[in-house]
This record gives sequence, structure tokens and C-alpha cells, in this order.
Amino acid sequence: MTKETQVSITVIRRLPKYYRYLSELLQKGINRISSQELSKLTGFTASQIRQDLNNFGGFGQQGYGYNVEELHKELGKILGLNKEYKAVVAGAGNLGNAIANYGGFKDAGFDIIGVFSRYYKDLPFDMEGLEVRDMSELEDFIKDNNVDIGIITTSKDNAQKVADIYIKSGIKGIWNFAPVDLVVPEDIVLENVRLSDSLYTLSYFLKGLGK
Amino acid sequence: MTKETQVSITVIRRLPKYYRYLSELLQKGINRISSQELSKLTGFTASQIRQDLNNFGGFGQQGYGYNVEELHKELGKILGLNKEYKAVVAGAGNLGNAIANYGGFKDAGFDIIGVFSRYYKDLPFDMEGLEVRDMSELEDFIKDNNVDIGIITTSKDNAQKVADIYIKSGIKGIWNFAPVDLVVPEDIVLENVRLSDSLYTLSYFLKGLGK
Repeated sequence: MTKETQVSITVIRRLPKYYRYLSELLQKGINRISSQELSKLTGFTASQIRQDLNNFGGFGQQGYGYNVEELHKELGKILGLNKEYKAVVAGAGNLGNAIANYGGFKDAGFDIIGVFSRYYKDLPFDMEGLEVRDMSELEDFIKDNNVDIGIITTSKDNAQKVADIYIKSGIKGIWNFAPVDLVVPEDIVLENVRLSDSLYTLSYFLKGLGK
Repeated sequence: MTKETQVSITVIRRLPKYYRYLSELLQKGINRISSQELSKLTGFTASQIRQDLNNFGGFGQQGYGYNVEELHKELGKILGLNKEYKAVVAGAGNLGNAIANYGGFKDAGFDIIGVFSRYYKDLPFDMEGLEVRDMSELEDFIKDNNVDIGIITTSKDNAQKVADIYIKSGIKGIWNFAPVDLVVPEDIVLENVRLSDSLYTLSYFLKGLGK
């Protein structure tokens, strides 16, 4: 799998989409699919799909296409979805609540085992089945439980402070929802969700419609 | 602005990031920036930045760089952020609540004027200052108020039904958070937020760290 290290981020960001479509095909009991059919589903060209998947090994067979179950399983491994991750959420507002209670993440191997808030006056409180702890306990909790992923759903102003605690406590991946560019060391995996960027893209295309 | 129609989606998705950085520079009182300095901030190469911005006209001047205020204003116009949009949210769970109450959207011209839920037994209820209405009123509300954008924060199972109501009522843009591929006519702008795709990308890079 040495080839994998050279794969561009653009290709990698397409993999979850392939994985999602393959999951749906599996649910429908479809066992085999050509790159042309995958193209119709995903909106990527057939040659793009073949090229993307060839980065990770030869999955398809000429004249047969792809075995859906096998490709789904392999893509899952490539994405690391055959592993179990422990995650914590910092920021127990609406967004933190939404993320902590979304069942889909647990099904995919991401187990949110703690939620933390700095509003200690009202803590601990119960948030739809999850106990919310005081932010001062975050560092010890991460170390005691070998947490892999730190999720940030705090305000913009508190996000870097939380990131610093995550880094200090040995977390390897940060999933950041706060609208701020965090400063993290190179060996920390940082993935940002930029809701405004998505909304502005929508706005760009609406403008094209004459709005 | 006929040139604009040929611009690729990849370039367009970078514009909100430029806009975000320019907003921050403006706040810091910085009036002028070179493509090299913008490169350090954004992580894109200087030539990429010049190429991206040239798609929309000649903003920079050789030897001077970019005027931050002017470029910010022009990018805002290109993204349609100089306009006011009316939006509604369908789905009044945690995520709907988070979206409806996020002040940053209103500041950027996106005004969420209604929240709808199908859990009519408990409706209308007050959700942090927003009255939540019954889903059966959605269609009339959109028509009466000339709503531009429909946001979907329902479950996967209800998302297409809501999209159909949006389309029937004359909404032009859909911002979808439900993990499902909606079927919409070509003249509807559909922007999806795929939280799982982002999490899987994080997982991919964590795996590279030996997790």
C-alpha cells in the first residue's frame, strides 16, 4: 500500500462518496456494477472512477466490472472504517448535541464516549442520554480512555484552547466545526467542517439563477 | 461576467475560503496583500490563487498585490453575499436547532424566517426564540414569504418528501444535511453537507498514522 501515500486529497475526498453508494447497492442486493453504472450514480466519469480506484489496487475486472461487496469492504479498509475509534465532543450546545447523538457515527465505528462543556455551573447534566462533564476533566478523560478523535463544537473563541488540550492529551485527530483556522502540529490530522463555505457555494449558484 | 459560467466547481469551492481570509485581514486592518502572502494563509500556491481570481477579472496589480477591501467586496459579490436571502429550516431536531440559531448566517445575509417540524402534536413550540410550525404549513409559508432557500435537517427518510415540497413551492436552493441523495430538477441548486464524508476523510488520515 505504499502507492496510497501519493494519492491526492481530491481523490481521497471522493472515496467516502463511492463507499456511500456501494453501501446502498449492497442494501439493495446488487452484487456487481460496471464503472459506467457507478458513473451514473456518482456523477463522476467512468474513466475517473477507474483511475481513482486504481490508486489503491486493481479492484475491477474488464468485462465484469466491480464486485460490490468486495469493493465496499476494501474501500472501508482504505478509509479505516474497519477500526473502532473513541471520540469526545467539546462544546455541548445544539451542534455538539446533534453530533453526539447522531447514530450513524457509532454504526461506522466512531464511538462518542464523552461530552464536555465549560459551563460548569450547570454540570454535570444529562444531554439525551450522555452525561456532560466539566471541561477541566477533559485532559484526564482523554488520557484515561485512550481517545482517538476530538470533536470541537465550541464557539470560535474557545476552539483553539480546546484544540490545545486535545493535542496535549495525545489525541491524533481533530474534527473541527468552529469557524476558525486552528493551529496544530503537523502530525495531528485536522478535518474542518465549514458550514459557511457550503452555504456560500449555494449562494454563488443561486446568484447564477438571477437571484 | 460571461466568463464566470465556465469556472469549475473546484475553483468555486475555494472562493469562500479566500473570502473568509480576506474578512479576517480586513478585521486586522490589513489593506494590501500579495498572492505569496495569501498563499501562506490559505495553503494554495500563489499561481493557483492568481489563476483562480483571474477567472473573475483582473483584481491584482503586478508589484502591488491585491487591495484587500476591494477584493473582499468583489468576492462577496461573486458569491452573491451582497444579497439578502430568506431561508426556512425543515426538521427541528438538534441539528435544525443549531442551524436556525447560528448567528453567522444572518450576518452574511441569510435570514432564517421559519422552522418546521412534522411532530405536530407538540406544535407550535418555541425553539430558542424561533416559533416552530407544523410541516403542513410549509408550502403556504414559502409562497407567502418568497423564501429562497430551503434547509433540510430532517431524518434521511423524510428528506425527499421535504425536498418535493420545497420544489413545488418555488424554492430555488436546497441546503441538505440529511445523509441521502435527493432527486431534484436541474434548475434547483442543491448543496449537500456530508458530515460522514468528512469524518471518513479524517479516519483515512488517522489510519495513515498507524491507528
